Amino acid sequence: MNTYSVKAYGTESKEADLKEMNIERREATPKDVEIEILFCGVCHSDLHTARNDWGGTKYPAVPGHEIVGRITKVGSEVSKFKVGDLAGVGCIVDSCGTCESCKQDLEQYCQTGFVGTYNGKDEHLGGHTFGGYSQKVVVDANHVLRIPENLDLAAVAPLLCAGITTWSPLRHWNVGPNSKVAVVGLGGLGHMAIKLAKGLGAEVTLFSRTPGKTEDAKKLGADHVVISTDNSQMDSVKGKFDLIIDTVPYDHDVNPYISTLNINGTHVLVGYLGDLENIINTVPMIMGRKSVAGSVIGGIAETQEMLDFCGEHNIVSEIEIIKMQEINEAYERMLKSDVRYRFVIDMQSL
Amino acid sequence: MNTYSVKAYGTESKEADLKEMNIERREATPKDVEIEILFCGVCHSDLHTARNDWGGTKYPAVPGHEIVGRITKVGSEVSKFKVGDLAGVGCIVDSCGTCESCKQDLEQYCQTGFVGTYNGKDEHLGGHTFGGYSQKVVVDANHVLRIPENLDLAAVAPLLCAGITTWSPLRHWNVGPNSKVAVVGLGGLGHMAIKLAKGLGAEVTLFSRTPGKTEDAKKLGADHVVISTDNSQMDSVKGKFDLIIDTVPYDHDVNPYISTLNINGTHVLVGYLGDLENIINTVPMIMGRKSVAGSVIGGIAETQEMLDFCGEHNIVSEIEIIKMQEINEAYERMLKSDVRYRFVIDMQSL
Repeated sequence: MNTYSVKAYGTESKEADLKEMNIERREATPKDVEIEILFCGVCHSDLHTARNDWGGTKYPAVPGHEIVGRITKVGSEVSKFKVGDLAGVGCIVDSCGTCESCKQDLEQYCQTGFVGTYNGKDEHLGGHTFGGYSQKVVVDANHVLRIPENLDLAAVAPLLCAGITTWSPLRHWNVGPNSKVAVVGLGGLGHMAIKLAKGLGAEVTLFSRTPGKTEDAKKLGADHVVISTDNSQMDSVKGKFDLIIDTVPYDHDVNPYISTLNINGTHVLVGYLGDLENIINTVPMIMGRKSVAGSVIGGIAETQEMLDFCGEHNIVSEIEIIKMQEINEAYERMLKSDVRYRFVIDMQSL
Repeated sequence: MNTYSVKAYGTESKEADLKEMNIERREATPKDVEIEILFCGVCHSDLHTARNDWGGTKYPAVPGHEIVGRITKVGSEVSKFKVGDLAGVGCIVDSCGTCESCKQDLEQYCQTGFVGTYNGKDEHLGGHTFGGYSQKVVVDANHVLRIPENLDLAAVAPLLCAGITTWSPLRHWNVGPNSKVAVVGLGGLGHMAIKLAKGLGAEVTLFSRTPGKTEDAKKLGADHVVISTDNSQMDSVKGKFDLIIDTVPYDHDVNPYISTLNINGTHVLVGYLGDLENIINTVPMIMGRKSVAGSVIGGIAETQEMLDFCGEHNIVSEIEIIKMQEINEAYERMLKSDVRYRFVIDMQSL
């Protein structure tokens, strides 16, 4: 398979800073599109992968799965895109297409494992996939999204991961105008959860550990802010919520939130992969048919649905644009939660 | 309010055996029916309450919430029953009728708290309610069930608690002919879960810790038995089940079962109220949109639906009939799991 070289930003080891490097992209096959990347969002997973926090990182690692750009080549079998179209790529660049999950448009739960946009098994070139911290990307057209023309393109990028990760549970658990939704954590995921839940017509509450985020949360669309360390405030929302979207990316106690679920309510974890060290008590679950669940990103069709919805409702992420060369500093700031609410790389800087 | 005395079996303290005593029943009001109790099932909750295992037991305690009998009086406002009808009473004898749960026929989640058939707050006489280990019971007709005439009446009694406790999650999570259901634990609840899931057309698997239960499980309708202590057997059902009904009445590790859930699957706890001391890992939940949930008994309308279904499908509990005077010995045998699968008291013995 013919390839060509593009500039990228990546790291050779878990200790090393990211730096400029060259990677190979395949020449677009008849099923592919080639995209000139204009902006790429910076997800916590990028940092975790670069530093091998979850194990399994293959080096060199080129992160980035919140990709927007403009199509520069279209394969002969591709009808849904033309050269010059805006396009997006999220976390999934390939999936089997034939398992029970894929047949239901749930590529995120592909039973043979979807191919991640980076650090996945590259089925075309061998080796592993390289993400969006690069000039161009070549992707199977069925895994490429259309981007509404009316939105700020840079601020669309985070929708491809932070957006769909919160949209998918909102839709799966049928959130609508009569729903009461709570969001735990106000970061990249949490701020999108507020905007999307509000867009769907729900009454939205932010759980926050500190009062300092109230004004921001309300600007983003939250109807209420509940300080989760204040017992009287927690008591005041007992039994209230149909769905809680928990975006906290580290271990924490979910029991206090379960008490705030209504009958049939669900607490869905989207941010933390690991052990819940706090023991869960089953009494409120059993006495209220409550659930604790998990959810990861979303399928391709669902991602398109979310992007179209954002186009109609003028919803984008709150972002801070950085140059590619500022990525290492951006990672350090992310670790201190010093970002409102998502870094997006202007790829012209590469 | 006028009352009359009936014979019952109860206990004066957590250490004392159950013995014969007299209790007061109210004269049936225009909304009530009076039932001559013919059989009463023996639930683990009876024992827990008699011995104050959960705290909060009021003495004297007269257990029993799997009640079947024949109607001996009908209040003037009651149209759905007549004297001589068979009737059943389960775990709920009163509920507010006006909260969001009650309005949805979810009396088991009544937001002011349903009135338990025993050890509940008696809203008619004051004090606390007395259960079915007695000659008669007087109950608001809206909380009384019709009993199919074609079934063995003694074997119907356990449907009122063990049956509905497993039926409700089967229905809530939409089990039908294409479903794969697993049941954890083969006791009073577990054997009903197998029969009811099979009746609904599901493929049914029993998880058991020991091979000794295989033959019995298959007689009850299980298609498969998986020995949960055998890793290769557990691996063989990875990702298989849409719903797991976990009837185990003590703390246990749910992680191995979560791995056997299919995408969107739910592990529902119906038997254990307390802390899950084993730490739950979120990875399989997030990577497969799986849930851990709880469920308690069922509403009145749902209980009627279950009884009607059992009438149509000839489903009853497997029982061992005992005399009222044998209850203390029966409790000891229950603690050793020495019952297949439910004791039912022949109340004529009182």
